[in-house]
Amino acid sequence: MAFNMSHIHVKLGVLSSHDDTSVNSITLFVLLLCACVLIGHLLEKSRWMTESVVALIIGFFTGIIILLTTAGQSSHILLFNEELFFIYLLPPIIFNAGFQVKMKQFFRNFVAIFLYGVVGSIISFLIVSLGSIQFFQKLDIGLLDLGDYFALGAVFSATDSVCTLQVLNQEETPLLYSLVFGEGVVNDATSVVLFNAIQKFDLSHITSANVMQFLGNFLYLFVTSTFLGVAVGLLSAYIIKKLYFGRHSTDREIALMILMAYFSYMVAELLDLSGILTVFFCGVVMSHYTWHNVTENSRITSRHAFATFSFMAEIFIFLYVGMDALDIEKWKFASNSPWTFVAASAILLGLVLLGRAAFVFPLSFVANLTRKSETDKIGFKQQIVIWWAGLMRGAVSVALAYNKFTRSGHTQLQGNAIMITSTITVVLLTNVVGGLLTKPLIRSLLNPHRHSMHSELSSDKHLSLPLLLNGQDSEVNVDTGNPLDTNHTIHYFWRLFDDKFMRPVFGGRGFVPSSPTDSSPH
Amino acid sequence: MAFNMSHIHVKLGVLSSHDDTSVNSITLFVLLLCACVLIGHLLEKSRWMTESVVALIIGFFTGIIILLTTAGQSSHILLFNEELFFIYLLPPIIFNAGFQVKMKQFFRNFVAIFLYGVVGSIISFLIVSLGSIQFFQKLDIGLLDLGDYFALGAVFSATDSVCTLQVLNQEETPLLYSLVFGEGVVNDATSVVLFNAIQKFDLSHITSANVMQFLGNFLYLFVTSTFLGVAVGLLSAYIIKKLYFGRHSTDREIALMILMAYFSYMVAELLDLSGILTVFFCGVVMSHYTWHNVTENSRITSRHAFATFSFMAEIFIFLYVGMDALDIEKWKFASNSPWTFVAASAILLGLVLLGRAAFVFPLSFVANLTRKSETDKIGFKQQIVIWWAGLMRGAVSVALAYNKFTRSGHTQLQGNAIMITSTITVVLLTNVVGGLLTKPLIRSLLNPHRHSMHSELSSDKHLSLPLLLNGQDSEVNVDTGNPLDTNHTIHYFWRLFDDKFMRPVFGGRGFVPSSPTDSSPH
Repeated sequence: MAFNMSHIHVKLGVLSSHDDTSVNSITLFVLLLCACVLIGHLLEKSRWMTESVVALIIGFFTGIIILLTTAGQSSHILLFNEELFFIYLLPPIIFNAGFQVKMKQFFRNFVAIFLYGVVGSIISFLIVSLGSIQFFQKLDIGLLDLGDYFALGAVFSATDSVCTLQVLNQEETPLLYSLVFGEGVVNDATSVVLFNAIQKFDLSHITSANVMQFLGNFLYLFVTSTFLGVAVGLLSAYIIKKLYFGRHSTDREIALMILMAYFSYMVAELLDLSGILTVFFCGVVMSHYTWHNVTENSRITSRHAFATFSFMAEIFIFLYVGMDALDIEKWKFASNSPWTFVAASAILLGLVLLGRAAFVFPLSFVANLTRKSETDKIGFKQQIVIWWAGLMRGAVSVALAYNKFTRSGHTQLQGNAIMITSTITVVLLTNVVGGLLTKPLIRSLLNPHRHSMHSELSSDKHLSLPLLLNGQDSEVNVDTGNPLDTNHTIHYFWRLFDDKFMRPVFGGRGFVPSSPTDSSPH
Repeated sequence: MAFNMSHIHVKLGVLSSHDDTSVNSITLFVLLLCACVLIGHLLEKSRWMTESVVALIIGFFTGIIILLTTAGQSSHILLFNEELFFIYLLPPIIFNAGFQVKMKQFFRNFVAIFLYGVVGSIISFLIVSLGSIQFFQKLDIGLLDLGDYFALGAVFSATDSVCTLQVLNQEETPLLYSLVFGEGVVNDATSVVLFNAIQKFDLSHITSANVMQFLGNFLYLFVTSTFLGVAVGLLSAYIIKKLYFGRHSTDREIALMILMAYFSYMVAELLDLSGILTVFFCGVVMSHYTWHNVTENSRITSRHAFATFSFMAEIFIFLYVGMDALDIEKWKFASNSPWTFVAASAILLGLVLLGRAAFVFPLSFVANLTRKSETDKIGFKQQIVIWWAGLMRGAVSVALAYNKFTRSGHTQLQGNAIMITSTITVVLLTNVVGGLLTKPLIRSLLNPHRHSMHSELSSDKHLSLPLLLNGQDSEVNVDTGNPLDTNHTIHYFWRLFDDKFMRPVFGGRGFVPSSPTDSSPH
C-alpha cells in the first residue's frame, strides 16, 4: 500500500508544505484501509457486501466528515493523480489478473473468452460511444468532442466481475466461472487498449481510411504489447531456470518477479504501447513458466503477495472514489443542472445494459458452434449470468474516467464534471445493486443440484478447477475431448508446441529438474 | 519497490514537468535493481560480494555514465528525499528485522543483546561524538555545531551486520549468530532513537540538568515507542485471532499485517515518537503472536514478502548511495580541501573501530558473568568476531547522514558536504573490506570442527536454530538450563507470564484452536 501512500504524501507535500498534514492523511488512509479489510471480512458471510462496496461506503462517509471538518472546502484528503492510478494502482491489479490465469483453462475456453473479452468489449464500446453521441447531444451537457464520447465508450466497456466471481461457485459451475473470469481479465486489457488507441486517434475527420488506421493502431498496440509482455515473462522464466539452478532464494525470486513485471510495464509505457496489456501477459507467462521454476515457498508467496497487492490497490481506488463522490467542485456543476446529470447517468446505465446484452447472447451462440459436446454448450440461463456478471463497473472504469475527464483531480468544464459524477454514480449503483442481487439471481437461475451434476460431468471431462490458483490441475486428460471441438484443437496444438519447444527451455510444470530447495540469503 | 519508484517519479515530475523523464528513470531504476539482484546472486558463491556491495558498485558506475551523458550536470536520476528514506525505505527494513526476531532466542541471550545493542550503541555514540569534536576542530572543516557532532555519533553507531550474518553459519556457531543478529536489530533502533533524541536536545548550553533531561527524553522515547509498537502488534494478533476464527483469508491477513505495521509507524511519527522503534517491536510482537494465528500460507507469505521488501529497500538505498557518491556538488567542496576530506574519513573510520572495541570486550565480560555454564560463555575469539561484525556501516547510517547533513539532497555548507562524502566513503570502505575479509577472518578464528562440536553441545542445551525464520524451534527444553543463569531466569519468568496471560488472549504457538484453513476471498 505504501506506494499509494507515498503519492498522497507527496501530493499533499506539494499542496501544503506543512509535513504533519501529509503524515496525518497517510495515517488516516491506512486506518481506513484497515477498516475496509476488517468490515469487508465481517460482512463476507452476508455475501451481498464486497470489499468494494464497503470501501465505497466508508470512503463516502469519511468524505462527509472531511467535508464537515473542512467547512465544505474539500471532501478528500488527496488530489486525484493519474500517475497514481496508471503507474502504481493499475499494474498490480492487472498483473495479478494475468498471474491467476491458468493457460490450460484459458485455452480450453479460448474461443468464448476471446469473443466475450475482445469482440464483446469492442461491440459494447461502439454501442456506448454511438449511443452517448446520439443522446447526449440532446442534453445541454456542455462541450464534449467526439474523443470524449469514444472515451466514454472505453470507460464503460471495462467490466468488474469480482463481485460475481465471489458468488459463483467454482465447483458447482466451473464452466461459468472460467468464462466470467476469463472475460473479466481480457476485457480489462481490451478496454484500456481501446482507450489508448482512441487517445491517439484523430477524430476531427472520420474517413474509412481513418477508421482502418484506427483498427491498425489497435491491432498494432494489441500485438506488440502482448509480444513484449510474453518476451519479458519468458526472460524471467529463463533467468530463474538457468541462474537459480541448484540454489534458490525465495527473496530473490520474488524480488525478480516483481521487478521484471514492473519493468515490462514501464518499458511498454516508454514505447507508447499498452503497459496494461503487457503486464497482463507478462503475468500469464510468469504463472505458466516462471512460477514452476521457483521454490515451493516462492510459489505460495508470489500467489498471495500479488493477490494482496491487487486487493489493496482495488480497495484504495474504491475508497478514493467514495471520498471523491462528494467532491464539491464536480457537484457544483452537476447541481447547476441536476436533471442533466440524472439523465446522463440514466442514459449511461441504459447503454451499459444494452451494450452488454448486444454481444453476450449473439457471441454465446457463436461460441456454442465451436462446442460440440452438449455438456459444454453455454445454456441461456448461463448466458444471463454472464451478461449480469459484466454489468458491474469498477476500478478500471474509474481510472480511465478520471484520466480522461480531469486534470490532476480538477474539472474545469461542466461536461467533464458531469461525466465524472455520472461515472461515479454508475459505479456506485452497479456495485451496490450488483452486490445485492447477484447471489439471489444466480441461485434462482442455476439450480445448484442440477448444475453440480452437470459440473460433475463436465469436470470429469476437463472443466474442473477452472483457472485455479494452486496450479494443481492435472494434465492427464490433455488429449481427451472431441477433436472436432475447436477449443480442444487449439489447446491440443498449443500443448504439443508447449511441451516440445517451450517447456524444455523455459521450464514449467514437469520440466523443472528437481523440486528446488530454498536457501534464503538472509 | 513501487513506492520508491513513485517517489522518484514525483521528485522528477517536480524537477521536469516532462513526463517521459520520470518514466525513463523509473525504468532505469527497476532495471538496475534487477541487475543488482541477479549479479548479487551470481556472486553469492564467492561470499566476498554481497548485494549491498554490488548495488554500491552498480550505482557508482551508473553514476559515472549519467555524469558523462549529462555532461557533468548530475550523477543521479533522483534527488535525495528524506521522506523517501524515513517513510518508505526504513520501515520495511526495520519491521522485517523485528519480524525475524524469535522472542525465545531474544530472551535466551537477552542480557548480552541488550548490553551490545543499547549500552554498546550509546558507548560508541559517545566515543564517536566526543572523538569527532576533539579531532575535527583541528581541521578547518567549516562550521559544524555540537548537534552535528552528536548526530555523527548516532550516524556511526548504527551498524549493518548483514554481511557477517551471511558468512556466519547458524549450525556451526548458533550463539554467535544469535548475538550478532540480536545486536544488529536492537542497535538499528537504538541509534535512530539516539539520533532523534539529539535533534530535540538543546545543545547550546550543556548542564547536568540538561543531560538528565536528554536521558529522560531518550528513555521516554524508548519506552513509549516500544509500548505503542507492542500495543498495535497485540491488537493485530487479537483481531486476527478473534475475527478470523473459522474462516481465514490469506490476502486479508497479509494486508492487515502490512497495514497495521505501517499504521503503528505513522502513529508514532504523528506523536513525535520513534516510528522505527515502534515498528520494530510491532514486528517482534507480530511474529510472536499474530504470525501463529494466521494460515500456513499467510505464514510463508508474510515471512518472505516482508523479507523481500526489506531486501529491495536495502538494495535501493545502496544503489542510490553508489550513484550519489559521485555527486559533483558534494565533491566540489571536498576537493577544495582534499586533505580535510581524507582526514575526516580516516578519523571517522578510526573512531568507529575504537568505539566498537571500547564496548564489545568490556560488555562481553559483563555478559559472561550472567552465563554460568562454560559452553555459554562468549570466548575471546567470538568477541573479536562480534567486534568485526559491527564495523560495517549501512543503510541506516546513510539515511541518518543524509537526513542531517542535506536539505532534500542538496548540501550548501562545506562542512555538511564533507560529512556526507566521508559517510559515503566509510560505508563504501567498511562494506567492501568487510565483504572481502569477513569470511577468511571467521574461518581462521573459529575452527569449524571444534565449534560444530561446541554447537552440538549448546544446541542440545537450547541454542539451536537461533532467531530462526520458520518458527519451528521446539519448546520442549524450556525449563532446562541452570536456574542461576540470568538469561534462563528472565526467559523462564517471561514464559510463565506469556503462557499464563498473553497466549490465551493473543494466540501464538500452541494457542491457536486449530490449524486455520485458508479460504481466499478472490
